[in-house]
Amino acid sequence: MSSTILRFTAESTTNGVRERDFTVGGVPGVLWSPAVGPERAPLVLMGHGGGNHKKHPAMTGRARRLVLGCGYHVAVLDAPGHGDRPRSEHDEAEIAVMQEAMAAGKPVGPIVVRYNDHLAELSLPEWQSTLDALQRLPEIGADGPVGYWGINMGTAIGIPFVAVEPRITAAVFGQHWPDTLADKARRITIPVEYDLQWDDEHISREAGLALFDAFASKEKTLHANAGRHKELPRFEADSAVRFFARHFGRANAGAA
Amino acid sequence: MSSTILRFTAESTTNGVRERDFTVGGVPGVLWSPAVGPERAPLVLMGHGGGNHKKHPAMTGRARRLVLGCGYHVAVLDAPGHGDRPRSEHDEAEIAVMQEAMAAGKPVGPIVVRYNDHLAELSLPEWQSTLDALQRLPEIGADGPVGYWGINMGTAIGIPFVAVEPRITAAVFGQHWPDTLADKARRITIPVEYDLQWDDEHISREAGLALFDAFASKEKTLHANAGRHKELPRFEADSAVRFFARHFGRANAGAA
Repeated sequence: MSSTILRFTAESTTNGVRERDFTVGGVPGVLWSPAVGPERAPLVLMGHGGGNHKKHPAMTGRARRLVLGCGYHVAVLDAPGHGDRPRSEHDEAEIAVMQEAMAAGKPVGPIVVRYNDHLAELSLPEWQSTLDALQRLPEIGADGPVGYWGINMGTAIGIPFVAVEPRITAAVFGQHWPDTLADKARRITIPVEYDLQWDDEHISREAGLALFDAFASKEKTLHANAGRHKELPRFEADSAVRFFARHFGRANAGAA
Repeated sequence: MSSTILRFTAESTTNGVRERDFTVGGVPGVLWSPAVGPERAPLVLMGHGGGNHKKHPAMTGRARRLVLGCGYHVAVLDAPGHGDRPRSEHDEAEIAVMQEAMAAGKPVGPIVVRYNDHLAELSLPEWQSTLDALQRLPEIGADGPVGYWGINMGTAIGIPFVAVEPRITAAVFGQHWPDTLADKARRITIPVEYDLQWDDEHISREAGLALFDAFASKEKTLHANAGRHKELPRFEADSAVRFFARHFGRANAGAA
């Protein structure tokens, strides 16, 4: 484990969920925990989507389900160039190219794949230091179950991370291209739930299915829903919570 | 509605579930209901798999989840040539051809497709009469939600039935070939959950995905799990129960 230290910078409790902002090596993150809960509980790390940040409603909503429904701890980092982190010149240039392609109605896939691959490379050591630091908290501990949940850019960052991180033993991914990720997915053998949109206007069915196919996991489940890229149904969040509950147990049954 | 009459032939109650055997026009079926429950509740019709029957453990287990978890009524018929029903010469001949193909390691798909299509044709009017008769029971009624749940042969019989039966408003299908079914699936617009096995040794991925693709439903979800034909995970039964609970409401929350 690295010696990078976790510093709490803010704390509040709302409707049964304790929210603590932190930094690890300068990277800002948030840790959600049960306000009143068991001494130790599993941890789920979540990766946010491209263009948003650690406290996006998709993150806070999922965190509440995991905290209140299962009694887990949940942590999210701002990805490089996202949320409270400054954008580099490289970020600005890639975002400009992406916006130009969108405005021109051109495919954004190749740009997203390339940019997310770069962010994943920067993120990997950050996530490892953060996990080291979180596991030093007594309410998490070094030997408890750890999951990962990230769709879109959360998958682009998560697959390379999970591929090299043996502490993570169950993961929910989805909605990305296989180009730079399939080789890494082939090294992943833990249970995986994978979401894709059957009518995704950016990611072809062939591409989406190829990334699901690449996981070496004996237990893997594809959830493909009718609809376009941004129409991933809300019930898939509940399904992901049940997936973790099935694998990690449910400290606090009933509420999810 | 037809005038075919439902006759109850046996009744018992075990662990909160009331089980009533019945016949409609000579076809034997079973109706599971809450032992103590609301005056009216939704009905789920279930189709069993090839070679088994109305009280196969897969049927009784799913029925218990729907009755105890949701407070629903659940009905299953013995398919033609199955369970308590005599086999015709045609049944015997098709089963012999199927067993020969299996013993010789030849593909059984074309035989299963042809035989199940024949059974579906016989079953369709039986299911319609049964639904007419069940809806005359005061605890079901003519205007309540009706679902259909059948995998394998239950899908071969269910898709043609649901395609022409407007009373059914949500369905779970899975694990069949598209040959005779895709055209009928194209007429189905209700919410569908569809199970397939990613490593099915009988049904190719291409064939399985083609049948899912054929449904015209705006809401449809594919659940594809790693594993062979008979390895459909148990958690897909829980998922199907939640699918019906999401669409029909949950009279009796908590137990599923």
